[in-house]
Amino acid sequence: MDEAFIDALRARHPARRRYLVGVSGGRDSVALLDLLSRAGYRDLVVCHFNHALRGRASGADAAFARRLAKKLGLAAEIGRGAVRSEAGRRGLSVETAARELRYAFFAEMARKHRCRRLFLAHHAGDQAETVLINLCRGAGLPGLSAMAETSARTIGGVRLEILRPLLDVGRAEIDGYVERRGLAWREDATNAEADASARNAIRNEALPLLNAIFRREVGPALCRTARLAAAEDAALDAWLDREWPGIAVIGPPGGKRTPSLRVAPLRELNEALQRRALRRWLDLAGVAGVGFREIEGVRALLAPGSNTVAGANLPGGNLARRRAGFLTLEKSGSPASKRRKR
Amino acid sequence: MDEAFIDALRARHPARRRYLVGVSGGRDSVALLDLLSRAGYRDLVVCHFNHALRGRASGADAAFARRLAKKLGLAAEIGRGAVRSEAGRRGLSVETAARELRYAFFAEMARKHRCRRLFLAHHAGDQAETVLINLCRGAGLPGLSAMAETSARTIGGVRLEILRPLLDVGRAEIDGYVERRGLAWREDATNAEADASARNAIRNEALPLLNAIFRREVGPALCRTARLAAAEDAALDAWLDREWPGIAVIGPPGGKRTPSLRVAPLRELNEALQRRALRRWLDLAGVAGVGFREIEGVRALLAPGSNTVAGANLPGGNLARRRAGFLTLEKSGSPASKRRKR
Repeated sequence: MDEAFIDALRARHPARRRYLVGVSGGRDSVALLDLLSRAGYRDLVVCHFNHALRGRASGADAAFARRLAKKLGLAAEIGRGAVRSEAGRRGLSVETAARELRYAFFAEMARKHRCRRLFLAHHAGDQAETVLINLCRGAGLPGLSAMAETSARTIGGVRLEILRPLLDVGRAEIDGYVERRGLAWREDATNAEADASARNAIRNEALPLLNAIFRREVGPALCRTARLAAAEDAALDAWLDREWPGIAVIGPPGGKRTPSLRVAPLRELNEALQRRALRRWLDLAGVAGVGFREIEGVRALLAPGSNTVAGANLPGGNLARRRAGFLTLEKSGSPASKRRKR
Repeated sequence: MDEAFIDALRARHPARRRYLVGVSGGRDSVALLDLLSRAGYRDLVVCHFNHALRGRASGADAAFARRLAKKLGLAAEIGRGAVRSEAGRRGLSVETAARELRYAFFAEMARKHRCRRLFLAHHAGDQAETVLINLCRGAGLPGLSAMAETSARTIGGVRLEILRPLLDVGRAEIDGYVERRGLAWREDATNAEADASARNAIRNEALPLLNAIFRREVGPALCRTARLAAAEDAALDAWLDREWPGIAVIGPPGGKRTPSLRVAPLRELNEALQRRALRRWLDLAGVAGVGFREIEGVRALLAPGSNTVAGANLPGGNLARRRAGFLTLEKSGSPASKRRKR
């Protein structure tokens, strides 16, 4: 986070532009905001989302973020969401609900301030934790890729460009920076995600244990894996992009907007690309909650030898069917599906 | 490990053939040997390697394996190696030396018994540990793929076909099998690898901690990641196979057996394939100790704009150079390299 770092940052993200900055008030986002301010970024919008999960302390975090923005002469936006009730209402984990509400707030601010670039303070320590968490959840390459320094996310029609300039910076370096610069920050002003408990245990117990077992910091190895996985993930996605037009057919035989997939070219693909193609298909169709088991269930429909109509049940009452050389998606209780069952 | 399991095993690996079986005398290999014997495999050669790392207990393990083979009416081969001195002499970790000596013994037995098929007792618990260990060591996809149910390894000109029929079987299931069948086994008759300490800590501390953090067994998720990574690794390798003939040139301009690589087609590849191509190249050339940093060093030679001779130092006094549109490999102190430096 020295002069060379700042020069590289300004080269990638010109300082004369407007940016949103996610500021929880914790050490990392305070360091990021200070760094950006020092680097000559003047048109910043400090965005703080109050998850209201920590009672009075949450309100104090918000007030802290507002004061910080004022001190730096920056605009501040404070959002607020009823995370717990949202989680209950939509059957989401508190973690997921918190993230969704927070990003919806960012998207709203992006629209209001006509600025789709959002700086976030995730650092190498967060990245290592995310890799380990995603591994333990059985994520494949996309999960192991964890966070990218630059990524895009579309929320409610707004395409946010998410920038994480600290992703290669270790926690210790940020701590040192905060100390050297004498910055004030809010203890425990975390993202207040309910997986805080899992993430905190990974940070405070699992990673220190692994460091002790291997007698060195394993964080850099985890971050390196993320970087390699991201490149491999992108390579396989690019490969699928090339194959996709030969596989996906929009229109017949279902007449719906979700494409149908040709079985023959899918069969020609290797296992890894088959999985990717099916995942892309189900993503396009908006089928949620698809994991390894569901993908393998649909992939089983590709097996040759079965001339009868074959189907695989999917979450949300969806049914993948193979017939006449196509995979199609329908609601398992739909008239078409019932007609065929008779 | 029921009848269906045995049927599937015999379908993949016909019981009338001869097989070597690695038997440490521990629970897992005793279970495997019992299973094979029950399944009608008659022509098995019990191969036990005495790492002589545990003093008197090592000798007792060997005697146990010999008795076990005798009881089942099978041939037994006991190998022995001075692991510690081999490690010291060759500057290897005890773990690596143990593995190398053990596999050299297996290869020797393969030649002696004219049988290249080797059953090993690695199970899903071993697989999960290996994934986590390799992740912490910063392995990319190949490391995350961990072990395969069927793989090949060439040692001293012998191509061993390694078969791991228990790779999808959990530790608890093996324990239950051993108990139900009333099998005797040797406590702590591990593979006696020196990373036993790291592996044991992963098994006894890290994985239980992760299970507690995520409130379920994370092992299956790690094994699933291995399976997905293996397929993705194979897909990317197949892609590289197709590109390779356009990249590698045997003969000019170096005149050596190690191919030179054309820079132009390498540059056209994505990052992930570039890394793979360079790793394959350095593997072919027998350059050992190549990690992420070395690969990235060579990859930097591909950057356009540099018309001068550029070089990247590699382990073992090797030097990768780019000139006239080719990457070549030479000894950094070689006359050619010196001549060019003048």
